Amino acid sequence: MLAYDALVVGTGAVSVQPPIDGLTGSGALGPRDGVHLLHSMGDTFAVMETLEGTSPASAIIVGAGYIGLEMAEAFVARGLSVTQIEQLPEVLPTVDPELGRLIHSQLVEHGVDVLCRTAVTRISEAPARSTGRLQVDGVGPDGELTRFADIVLVVVGVRPDTSLAVDAGAAIGAKGALAVDRHMRTNLADVFAAGDCVATYHRLLGETYLPLGTTAHKQGRVAGENALGGDREFAGSLGTQVVKIFDTVAARTGLRDHEAIAAGFDPVTIAHEADDHKAYYPGSHRISMRYTGDRRTGRLLGVQLFGHRHAEVAKRIDIAAVALFHEMTIDAISDLDLSYTPPLGSPWDAVQAGAQTWTRETAT
Amino acid sequence: MLAYDALVVGTGAVSVQPPIDGLTGSGALGPRDGVHLLHSMGDTFAVMETLEGTSPASAIIVGAGYIGLEMAEAFVARGLSVTQIEQLPEVLPTVDPELGRLIHSQLVEHGVDVLCRTAVTRISEAPARSTGRLQVDGVGPDGELTRFADIVLVVVGVRPDTSLAVDAGAAIGAKGALAVDRHMRTNLADVFAAGDCVATYHRLLGETYLPLGTTAHKQGRVAGENALGGDREFAGSLGTQVVKIFDTVAARTGLRDHEAIAAGFDPVTIAHEADDHKAYYPGSHRISMRYTGDRRTGRLLGVQLFGHRHAEVAKRIDIAAVALFHEMTIDAISDLDLSYTPPLGSPWDAVQAGAQTWTRETAT
Repeated sequence: MLAYDALVVGTGAVSVQPPIDGLTGSGALGPRDGVHLLHSMGDTFAVMETLEGTSPASAIIVGAGYIGLEMAEAFVARGLSVTQIEQLPEVLPTVDPELGRLIHSQLVEHGVDVLCRTAVTRISEAPARSTGRLQVDGVGPDGELTRFADIVLVVVGVRPDTSLAVDAGAAIGAKGALAVDRHMRTNLADVFAAGDCVATYHRLLGETYLPLGTTAHKQGRVAGENALGGDREFAGSLGTQVVKIFDTVAARTGLRDHEAIAAGFDPVTIAHEADDHKAYYPGSHRISMRYTGDRRTGRLLGVQLFGHRHAEVAKRIDIAAVALFHEMTIDAISDLDLSYTPPLGSPWDAVQAGAQTWTRETAT
Repeated sequence: MLAYDALVVGTGAVSVQPPIDGLTGSGALGPRDGVHLLHSMGDTFAVMETLEGTSPASAIIVGAGYIGLEMAEAFVARGLSVTQIEQLPEVLPTVDPELGRLIHSQLVEHGVDVLCRTAVTRISEAPARSTGRLQVDGVGPDGELTRFADIVLVVVGVRPDTSLAVDAGAAIGAKGALAVDRHMRTNLADVFAAGDCVATYHRLLGETYLPLGTTAHKQGRVAGENALGGDREFAGSLGTQVVKIFDTVAARTGLRDHEAIAAGFDPVTIAHEADDHKAYYPGSHRISMRYTGDRRTGRLLGVQLFGHRHAEVAKRIDIAAVALFHEMTIDAISDLDLSYTPPLGSPWDAVQAGAQTWTRETAT
């Protein structure tokens, strides 16, 4: 037993294990069979062992979120032929399908076989002389389907790992995560919690569950400082996220339409495209944008971007994230003094051009 | 004669013509001799004519500001051997010399002969059998020097072109530029002015002269809207600037120490280096940073960055520019929910790592 003055719980999250035949229950397939969940360091080592020990020629990835997409790229880079299966209508369902389609194309361009609207029902050992050691059965828009591969990854998200704190009496918040205040205090005396195991304060949504590394770092810092007698508040998440897929990058911050409606806003989302820098200077790329703002107040609610990995998409979403943090209107984004040189931008940066389009298209 | 209801003056700026023998007065050398100022479209056409008509093998660039540096890169790309002469102690004197030195190295790596602390005194036709058609004499730290080249560019800045408005009675502000209010009104009834010809409102400095394309676009929009009966205010400049030099980018926003002192702040500037993204993911680059904050209040006053052109330096300076716009403290920068994925960033982005270093090093 260890005594403490203050305790910080950082038990994180565990992989969601979807109810797929062959994945759960007795006799379930696992890492030794080439069937993997992927969240922890241990999971990673197990995947590496399968890759190095069995030299798989093909992979099926169940799930097309951040981890699923990154693994598709990694497997293609290793020379595997990859099938990606997503239950929802489009890949990367955390962005609007208009951008998801662009990511989908990027996957297809790199040889990934992408199946959307497809639910996996069963994973099993393949019959002898199949084109892979494992068999995946599912139901897609055209009915039942079967695919074979040598390795199967199931990456459909995570859920908070709260048993330690809950057993001690900790209260639960959004999505079963530990309830904390903005000082990262649980309801238990002298017990703080942070990271993937807690319900996160979102500046636009209030309490939500949004396990992200950036948030975990911030919350850990707040919890640690307060555990030592400090008085710091977690400023809140905006759900800022980014992922690189082959030569492209998708990013978002803030809310999409359905989230904004749920939060009581009156959102309008418009699409815009702009060059990352002056097209007369070699090497320019188009950036696809989606701007969401509140119709009544003109307040910026969210931005989604997609573009080439050298189009500074990640830091452009961060410009929007800082604007969101300060509750700017979309119109005021044009007041920002952003940098310009022809090889890297425009006198009105792409993020300002998108904002101006929103203002123009929503004017009545 | 044209009558008007409202007039917008946008006469811009003209090149500063330094008092160099052979550049001014009767018998001065000009474009036909291969001696060029460079600001207007006409200047550009004249330079192109010299390049295409005389196929120069070598160039001397007088001045190492944004235009001078960009032209050094352009001439090297065309195969010319380039000498760059700067009167001040280091190139790109609009950033701290610690970053200027890094740009200096980049120039040298690409074969540019860089002479700092060197004042050009005379430009003349070279004697026959010289290594170039033109002769440039100057005084450097080791005394007098002479260089030869086939084309000479003099790019030492611009001054506002105000004669039209001044002749009509317009009042003058900083550096002889037209005085305007934040509605871009001159003192003359119904006469607005915008761009390189006006004294610019700076959010931290008040009135200054800072001719930049981004500012001109914003001011033009404000002047235009108000000329048509609108009521919009120019939000002000932060002096955000960026330049690409070969494979690197230098950028700044806000104030440097000496400017902050002049504006009544108590600045401290610290240096920091961070990776643009997780070093375990291939292709990471170091970013050199300088953070300036107010010792008494912790307020962010300025940021300067230098790094690889794929290190998203331009949009990282913009993150700082938005933080500056909202008068954030350096400490609060860590509250910003910025995007993270290993190929593009860190859970604390480089701009937050720099901010944390400032806070740590200035703690007493």
